[in-house]
Amino acid sequence: MTVPTPATHRLVELLEAECWDLLTGAVTGRLVWNGPDGPTAMTVNHQLDGHDVLLRSTPYGSIGREVDDSSVAFQADQVDPVEHAGWSVLLRGRAEFDYDASAVPVEVWPEGRRSLLVRIRPTSISGRRLLP
Amino acid sequence: MTVPTPATHRLVELLEAECWDLLTGAVTGRLVWNGPDGPTAMTVNHQLDGHDVLLRSTPYGSIGREVDDSSVAFQADQVDPVEHAGWSVLLRGRAEFDYDASAVPVEVWPEGRRSLLVRIRPTSISGRRLLP
Repeated sequence: MTVPTPATHRLVELLEAECWDLLTGAVTGRLVWNGPDGPTAMTVNHQLDGHDVLLRSTPYGSIGREVDDSSVAFQADQVDPVEHAGWSVLLRGRAEFDYDASAVPVEVWPEGRRSLLVRIRPTSISGRRLLP
Repeated sequence: MTVPTPATHRLVELLEAECWDLLTGAVTGRLVWNGPDGPTAMTVNHQLDGHDVLLRSTPYGSIGREVDDSSVAFQADQVDPVEHAGWSVLLRGRAEFDYDASAVPVEVWPEGRRSLLVRIRPTSISGRRLLP
């Protein structure tokens, strides 16, 4: 029986305002959904439009096939692996495909067209910080 | 109608061996599951035991209450927000609570006991790299 390394870092809940600030400052996060192959997370760059999370994808990829009008989460975090410190934010909501791409321009990183705009309308947000 | 920024970065599928190398080198990732409140992702530090992913948690938290003997994913990534490059790996499998904590010591970062060892037995792994 091994004894786990003792830890001294405190885990605290974030205020809602802090969660929004961190999500706004993050450049990428993960779209999380329950697909036909089980729980799935995909790293994407995103942008906020008010409190909606926007991201671009292709209509024929797994996001395009699996997330329209469904319950999803958007997760962002930042970890310092040396200090054992960091934060994470989890937004829950409903994903809609938005065909009015004029709302907010979302930058496209990979080559190829990403004509699908996914809008997540939030229902809750929470986050935690691990203090160094 | 805004025109999305043209992108020149190529997205390529990773070989399985590359996925394992990246997951082994990563210090943290996200446990992903479908809980009673919907799709959920939680940032955790992990360790590999062969091809099983191990992590520690508390028996009374959401992981302890929601993921035993269920379909989960474990996701890790690394993104360079300036170069618009990076990689992501998604492992799918089944989570089991492992009461034989002697298997592999998994470091505990936050203070407090994390007596629950979660073992993910993989069923598939895949990954992608966005080239700069």
